[in-house]
Amino acid sequence: MKQIVTITNGNVTSPAGFEASAVAAGVKYQDRLDLTLLVSQQPCTAAALFTQNQVAAAPVLVDRETIATNASSIRAVVANAGSANACTGQPGLANARAMQQMTAEAIQCQPDQVLVLSTGVIGVQLPMDKVKAGIAAASQQLSPDGGPSAARAIMTTDTRAKELAVQVQLPAGVITIGGMAKGSGMIHPNMATMLGVITTDAAVDAETLDSLLRTAVNASFNRISVDGDTSTNDTVMLLANGASGIEMAGSESIGLFSEALSFVCIQLAKMIIRDGEGATKFVTIRVRGGGSEADAHAVAMTIATSPLVKTAFAGSDPNWGRILAAAGRAGIPFDQSRTGLWIGLSEPCDLQLVAHGTPTDYQEADAAAVFSQESFMIELDLGAGDGQVTVWTTDLTHDYISINADYRS
Amino acid sequence: MKQIVTITNGNVTSPAGFEASAVAAGVKYQDRLDLTLLVSQQPCTAAALFTQNQVAAAPVLVDRETIATNASSIRAVVANAGSANACTGQPGLANARAMQQMTAEAIQCQPDQVLVLSTGVIGVQLPMDKVKAGIAAASQQLSPDGGPSAARAIMTTDTRAKELAVQVQLPAGVITIGGMAKGSGMIHPNMATMLGVITTDAAVDAETLDSLLRTAVNASFNRISVDGDTSTNDTVMLLANGASGIEMAGSESIGLFSEALSFVCIQLAKMIIRDGEGATKFVTIRVRGGGSEADAHAVAMTIATSPLVKTAFAGSDPNWGRILAAAGRAGIPFDQSRTGLWIGLSEPCDLQLVAHGTPTDYQEADAAAVFSQESFMIELDLGAGDGQVTVWTTDLTHDYISINADYRS
Repeated sequence: MKQIVTITNGNVTSPAGFEASAVAAGVKYQDRLDLTLLVSQQPCTAAALFTQNQVAAAPVLVDRETIATNASSIRAVVANAGSANACTGQPGLANARAMQQMTAEAIQCQPDQVLVLSTGVIGVQLPMDKVKAGIAAASQQLSPDGGPSAARAIMTTDTRAKELAVQVQLPAGVITIGGMAKGSGMIHPNMATMLGVITTDAAVDAETLDSLLRTAVNASFNRISVDGDTSTNDTVMLLANGASGIEMAGSESIGLFSEALSFVCIQLAKMIIRDGEGATKFVTIRVRGGGSEADAHAVAMTIATSPLVKTAFAGSDPNWGRILAAAGRAGIPFDQSRTGLWIGLSEPCDLQLVAHGTPTDYQEADAAAVFSQESFMIELDLGAGDGQVTVWTTDLTHDYISINADYRS
Repeated sequence: MKQIVTITNGNVTSPAGFEASAVAAGVKYQDRLDLTLLVSQQPCTAAALFTQNQVAAAPVLVDRETIATNASSIRAVVANAGSANACTGQPGLANARAMQQMTAEAIQCQPDQVLVLSTGVIGVQLPMDKVKAGIAAASQQLSPDGGPSAARAIMTTDTRAKELAVQVQLPAGVITIGGMAKGSGMIHPNMATMLGVITTDAAVDAETLDSLLRTAVNASFNRISVDGDTSTNDTVMLLANGASGIEMAGSESIGLFSEALSFVCIQLAKMIIRDGEGATKFVTIRVRGGGSEADAHAVAMTIATSPLVKTAFAGSDPNWGRILAAAGRAGIPFDQSRTGLWIGLSEPCDLQLVAHGTPTDYQEADAAAVFSQESFMIELDLGAGDGQVTVWTTDLTHDYISINADYRS
């Protein structure tokens, strides 16, 4: 029997005890969901990872403080799209705190039991009257079926909602993990990505939760890039309300929980890449033979963010020279005469383009056939050690330029 | 009297004692100049800086060795466009050495008196029969007027040749510095850029030459980026043949020479940016208030390579939030509440968009008017110290995608 099963149409309210709702508050967009509440009746332990950007948004600053002081009794998450509440100074901080306060009043808890998420344009103050009305309205519509609306309400340039849930069969019973995420541009997470919320009805102490989230995020959100631009608002949070009555204790339970959590995070991360701004390709980059995992990661991310590599993807051009040139500028030492490069539709890649740093006698048509697919894989061996990593990225297209040359207007 | 004067139509053979020629050897392109010889009758001292890319091309490996062992008697540079001779293994190395040998035979010198440059597609072996015929033909056409053809022969996706020369009035007389460069894509030099050759008829010892070249390159080629992609072939070399009979000794002469050399390098670097692939904007980014110059440089280069910033340039959108977000992910600590941002057409920028990390009450139309110009400037104050730097970059446009989605075919 499979112990981790994906739930059809699963979402952030699939775990027991979570409710959500979303409203069109008119923060920036008109007539679309842009404000959402996610509420647990029982207090949750919580863990969160935030952007490393020095220009961190107000909600990030507030949440860091909340998680640091109150990680064991979180009740709600309030989120808005349309304004990032970044570069907004003291008024922005006050507004993020007001969102905690308003939510606390609406659902009757303390302000420091509320986490805040914002996404959208930088440098614009939130229209707090609209936010207040939105929170009040949303608090009247909370429902265990509210997950899908919540996932839609946090979208900006996203073209589709990103959500899923899995059930995990443990010795003591079944627990559920649900998740939602948003993100399409400004995607190059550094410790976390642009808004991910994961829920579970398992009971997990805050310290374990933090450690499990770090592991999962390192294998997922930290391994994707759309454009190399780390957002000011990146946040991934994990709330565990214990409503299943099942406690995560013992290595078997924790191991399975960790596996399921990583699965949820990887699936959400891949959904972000598949919905990357202007993206027409989903490319898996595997680097092995690095001097360390960190070396392999640096090389993989340099390839994943190279404009020349990504335009070659867009043109279905198996231009391996650009891939090696990008690897070579990652700041990681390796001997080019020991490198090998393979491509294919999935692991293991079966078409070798480069051996000992020089081209094999592969047929150009075979390589082009792989790169013309919507989804393909590249495998680079650095020949320098045992470090390996897999990352996911997009191509760089005309549509990315069009979307971003005129995003604000 | 001005001591440094730009020569009308100056080029790499403007300094006394240099000759050049170029031929259509058919390395890859048909019916266009693609192979050039630059020769000094007197032996030159020489300095050169090369790519830091781990996947360094064969000519880079050969030139490193030549400069290390023979920096005081260089006679010639042979260069080809069309093939980069990178990722070509031992045969590629042998071909680069053969180019030294063929040139040495043609102009009657020793192979280790010849430097080699290649640019073009990665991973393709040079057609050595064509190269050999080209070198023989070029050696018959050497001329003091050959500079402009040489600059054309090293172009790849460049749309125009990049060359200039200056005369420097020294106490002992007049010396001349000439230079040429190529580069349009894969431009993010790390210690040097994609092919720059600078000549002078001053007499300078090799050690001084190396030190002066490092200073000039740090202020020029190391401060530009088209796409963040460091090439496998980046090389800047400086040849001094002493034909003016004027020796660079004493702080006044060396100071003026250094100033003129930096001017030549900065002009060539700016020409590369103005001819950046698909570029429609020339943007000067000045970062000050860094904890150090290195900090300011890291922040400036992160802004200069951010796809979101560069697409905003393309859209004439003064989206300062993206500029701050890019600065914030540079890995350099600063306090966002101390940052300020100004824009304008030249230094000092007069329109302040951000004060204390938040927007001023500037008029959007005023900001858009600046960003709609072909050339404009951004000034970011990090409020963290005295470090400052100026770098130059382009926008990121549909044409960049078009050029690079299908470069090889």
